[in-house]
Amino acid sequence: MAELKFDISAVSETPARTRVKARDFDIIVDEPPGLGGTDQAANPVEYVMAALAGCLNVMGHLIADEMNFALRGIEIEISGTLNPARLFGKSEADRAGYKHMTVTLKPDCDADEDTLEKWLQAVQDRCPVCDNLKYETPVDVGVERV
Amino acid sequence: MAELKFDISAVSETPARTRVKARDFDIIVDEPPGLGGTDQAANPVEYVMAALAGCLNVMGHLIADEMNFALRGIEIEISGTLNPARLFGKSEADRAGYKHMTVTLKPDCDADEDTLEKWLQAVQDRCPVCDNLKYETPVDVGVERV
Repeated sequence: MAELKFDISAVSETPARTRVKARDFDIIVDEPPGLGGTDQAANPVEYVMAALAGCLNVMGHLIADEMNFALRGIEIEISGTLNPARLFGKSEADRAGYKHMTVTLKPDCDADEDTLEKWLQAVQDRCPVCDNLKYETPVDVGVERV
Repeated sequence: MAELKFDISAVSETPARTRVKARDFDIIVDEPPGLGGTDQAANPVEYVMAALAGCLNVMGHLIADEMNFALRGIEIEISGTLNPARLFGKSEADRAGYKHMTVTLKPDCDADEDTLEKWLQAVQDRCPVCDNLKYETPVDVGVERV
């Protein structure tokens, strides 16, 4: 299949608040006051979870359709922990990002256990956001003068 | 430092649209019609880029402060490509997610080249979202019956 290209542009509204443009959509990213922000929106690591939840919903429905069982809806819970020491330049002992993320999918369906297990494996394997988190993704960051 | 815990909960509004709750914030994730959605909001892989942009803004300002140069603002551009063949179950030749992401930071500042290079390295090293994308992150996905 032809590759899909995605892009966004963003501008700092404050040192902790960012306005992102994705196609026609504006997304505000902020931080709570304790992390230097104005708390007008979710923060970056919460948006990572939102992206993962959105992707799992799409994949869950797509794969249920392929497997011929009715998925009436799905609830998703995600949690994760990170040590902010590296972010704040206090220590390099831990990584900067989430050390671990836990996802619970609660599908509303009548599929049996074997079917649900196969569904779960396919959802994880084919979910783009899951893939980019679980496995290394090349991210090249460069600087240009304004 | 004490670890920070983050969590979200989400519910499918349609097979491709998800409503995410992060603290008091509602985030809508959707897909364009070509990917089965209603196009009410950015899609999951665009939110990954929004999260990365938001995180880079925070880190850019934090580290400029530490390095004692004035960062008057920053513009960020991110692009990436993925092959949707795995997502749609057509082929397992390529990974599901972004194969590569390219980020351009455009800081509005008077720092010299050496300073900007040190800044760039620290921003990348200490940015949580960058870290979760660039390096493997354990994501445990489980299923519970509703």
